[in-house]
Amino acid sequence: VQIDLNADLGEGFGRWSLGDDEALLNVITSANIACGFHAGDPVTMLRVCEQAAARGVTIGAQVGYRDLAGFGRRKIDMAPDDLTADVLYQLGALNGCARAAGSHVSYVKPHGALYNTAVVDPVQAAAIVEAIVRYDRTLPVLTLPGSALAIAASESGVTAVSEAFADRAYRADGTLVPREQPGAVLHDSLAIAARAVTMVTNGTVITQNGTEITMAAHSLCLHGDTPGAVEIAHAVRAALAEAGVYVRPFRR
Amino acid sequence: VQIDLNADLGEGFGRWSLGDDEALLNVITSANIACGFHAGDPVTMLRVCEQAAARGVTIGAQVGYRDLAGFGRRKIDMAPDDLTADVLYQLGALNGCARAAGSHVSYVKPHGALYNTAVVDPVQAAAIVEAIVRYDRTLPVLTLPGSALAIAASESGVTAVSEAFADRAYRADGTLVPREQPGAVLHDSLAIAARAVTMVTNGTVITQNGTEITMAAHSLCLHGDTPGAVEIAHAVRAALAEAGVYVRPFRR
Amino acid sequence: VQIDLNADLGEGFGRWSLGDDEALLNVITSANIACGFHAGDPVTMLRVCEQAAARGVTIGAQVGYRDLAGFGRRKIDMAPDDLTADVLYQLGALNGCARAAGSHVSYVKPHGALYNTAVVDPVQAAAIVEAIVRYDRTLPVLTLPGSALAIAASESGVTAVSEAFADRAYRADGTLVPREQPGAVLHDSLAIAARAVTMVTNGTVITQNGTEITMAAHSLCLHGDTPGAVEIAHAVRAALAEAGVYVRPFRR
Amino acid sequence: VQIDLNADLGEGFGRWSLGDDEALLNVITSANIACGFHAGDPVTMLRVCEQAAARGVTIGAQVGYRDLAGFGRRKIDMAPDDLTADVLYQLGALNGCARAAGSHVSYVKPHGALYNTAVVDPVQAAAIVEAIVRYDRTLPVLTLPGSALAIAASESGVTAVSEAFADRAYRADGTLVPREQPGAVLHDSLAIAARAVTMVTNGTVITQNGTEITMAAHSLCLHGDTPGAVEIAHAVRAALAEAGVYVRPFRR
Repeated sequence: VQIDLNADLGEGFGRWSLGDDEALLNVITSANIACGFHAGDPVTMLRVCEQAAARGVTIGAQVGYRDLAGFGRRKIDMAPDDLTADVLYQLGALNGCARAAGSHVSYVKPHGALYNTAVVDPVQAAAIVEAIVRYDRTLPVLTLPGSALAIAASESGVTAVSEAFADRAYRADGTLVPREQPGAVLHDSLAIAARAVTMVTNGTVITQNGTEITMAAHSLCLHGDTPGAVEIAHAVRAALAEAGVYVRPFRR
Repeated sequence: VQIDLNADLGEGFGRWSLGDDEALLNVITSANIACGFHAGDPVTMLRVCEQAAARGVTIGAQVGYRDLAGFGRRKIDMAPDDLTADVLYQLGALNGCARAAGSHVSYVKPHGALYNTAVVDPVQAAAIVEAIVRYDRTLPVLTLPGSALAIAASESGVTAVSEAFADRAYRADGTLVPREQPGAVLHDSLAIAARAVTMVTNGTVITQNGTEITMAAHSLCLHGDTPGAVEIAHAVRAALAEAGVYVRPFRR
Repeated sequence: VQIDLNADLGEGFGRWSLGDDEALLNVITSANIACGFHAGDPVTMLRVCEQAAARGVTIGAQVGYRDLAGFGRRKIDMAPDDLTADVLYQLGALNGCARAAGSHVSYVKPHGALYNTAVVDPVQAAAIVEAIVRYDRTLPVLTLPGSALAIAASESGVTAVSEAFADRAYRADGTLVPREQPGAVLHDSLAIAARAVTMVTNGTVITQNGTEITMAAHSLCLHGDTPGAVEIAHAVRAALAEAGVYVRPFRR
Repeated sequence: VQIDLNADLGEGFGRWSLGDDEALLNVITSANIACGFHAGDPVTMLRVCEQAAARGVTIGAQVGYRDLAGFGRRKIDMAPDDLTADVLYQLGALNGCARAAGSHVSYVKPHGALYNTAVVDPVQAAAIVEAIVRYDRTLPVLTLPGSALAIAASESGVTAVSEAFADRAYRADGTLVPREQPGAVLHDSLAIAARAVTMVTNGTVITQNGTEITMAAHSLCLHGDTPGAVEIAHAVRAALAEAGVYVRPFRR
């Protein structure tokens, strides 16, 4: 049994930093690096690419809406052609940094409001896939299983890689409990680690109402900017190792 | 005898456009496409890349300072590491668009204040070259002959391609008469065209004070955003053809 | 009988300009000046304020989403507190320029997607009104009659001034025919001028399906960035004068 | 004897924060609030204005170059008219927020590279003063004694208020030891507090080479974003109180 661990990195901008990128890079196997639109200045992008390359961590393009002030967390009602071009631009920009670090972009993961929109909106989902098809159709996209983005990807011959969240509560239909609701986010590192092991070895998760549902994921998303993020990440990785799970990037 | 014709394209941003990109693409052989920092939104970049690719026009990265409000015309006193990362980011971003258009970035040309700074400042010049070395050291850089950028390039094994300006007055030392001075910019299309032919076939130019100096250039820069730009470009190209000069990109 | 004529001005940014601000300022009585979020750099804002002040044209804050790349034409799904702060910031910024020009901001008009959203969305409408209440509750807001913004304004004691569009087709319910539909925008200056006169003197307009509806407006909006904009503006003003209508700002 | 304590506040942007604004507001008497160009989103600006107003802390406009990526720490070689307009815009924008908080902007202090440039460059210094003259000539400007900005201010009838830095080493000519040099910044809170008391009660400071120079300041600048910033601020304020110095804003 094997699994990938991914996290959002490089989410500072200039003078401002967020999370402990270097500590997380010692735990994860895939780094979703911000590409400058919701976060991520070029110096930070280049440095995180170098740090990822030095550790053999796979680099993914964390593409977002052009919205530094809102950190990409506000949906922008944009035309699909504009979104395709924005994704191409960000993909290329990160690849410029990755290439200078002796690596390259290996996958795409939307960020924040774009992530959520791509789960439900077939038009924006297709616009993202269109960018991948035009840039390099062998790049997988990391998303929720069953999302509009996963469907749009498969229709275009792009691989959709499923991810799960060990620190988030799920509803019976397999969707995430919205962050605003009580209990939506777990904070106890041991509980999160145990949940991660069950997700990977059993392919299931206990939902908010106590039922067990299947949860087939090729990657677990770890949060990088929450309190205790690094400790939780280490706990998850240690528990997976103890359970005999190999932690490996889903793509090299 | 052969020569390349280059011009700045894609210098709009969103709702705002500048110059007649499509008309110029029918005349020039190398397109310096803005990369989003001083001008150039992703949709425009992608469209101009597609138009250039369709005509076999070579694509170059017109990299600039991050300064939309100042159109990249104000020197920013930035650290070399920051500048290297900014150039890598822009290079990659344009290449993302070029790749989607079935082409790729073939050279680099700094824009505006960065162009002028790189002519005289060895530190910023070296920072630009460092980005090229790290991204793809086979990419030439387009600049003035004898500039700090040309010197920095040659010291790092990067090719510096010389360009000349048929519509600008030169001083006896081979530098350009500053734009603010009277007579700095020529406007008569026939005079400009004749000057272009002399530059290419004779390798010389008459300076402001009447002396003749050598002017060895592999590319002539045509301006795209001045009144009559398209007409001047056509006049130059026609005069070169009549003089038996082949107009070809300096790099494919 | 009297009427105000308003138009969007100052919608360039740095190197880029849009429309002929100075020509329009000779025709209109209220200038909706862009405040830097969707368009409008400080130099342009200051210059247009000076030109407006010199002609006795009333200055209004044309507030928009923070979206230079999209010219404020894309809805951003932002929290009301964020929107209130963004409006306060823009209001104050324009007032800084207006004050330096010996004038001041006299009203507020949302731009583009924010205008359209405020017509139908009570939450964003209320967020705009909240900014006005906190900044200066005597400032009127210019909007469509019956809009969510007009309702939110009246609930907070803020004056809503109704505007109409002489160059746009109306539906029987008094809403505008969407721009994408054929016939949505009129281009003939004489037809537009005649329509303007009927709107003002008769308080009615003929809708797309031929019925006549009442259209009580205190201001007519003229477009500044369409082909023939200046000519249309002059035609409207001349026709109004000929019909004995006084053209005056709705607020001094 | 009395003195003002000022500090830079509101220097986050959207998701990113910097320093502990609220803790510092309990110590200082004048808040230099970032205005959105180098830092400071509207929500942050409004909140800090409200917190300052609630504590009777005077609000100043901390104006900077338009350079979020560089945090305003890179000199931009801009035309004076452009700088004047940028300062007017920022002044007005902050005043919009301050007004909504029941307060107003009471002084101006340039930030980062603009601060340093205004110390030595008469052209940019005069451009800043021009903005103040046009906006409200009664607003003082906070700067180093003897700076180009102080001179430009006095020539235009604008008050220049002198500030000193208790945590920075001085050279014999009264200028600051550049940050890059060893010993340029003091970190020991007791040493800084003692230095502050001497500056205020004695009007002197011991320079790097051991000589004593006069240092007449009406305000002491406390740093907000360094480790131990809040503790140092409290130590300075307590030491001043113990020495019988009244801590009061230089302007209400």
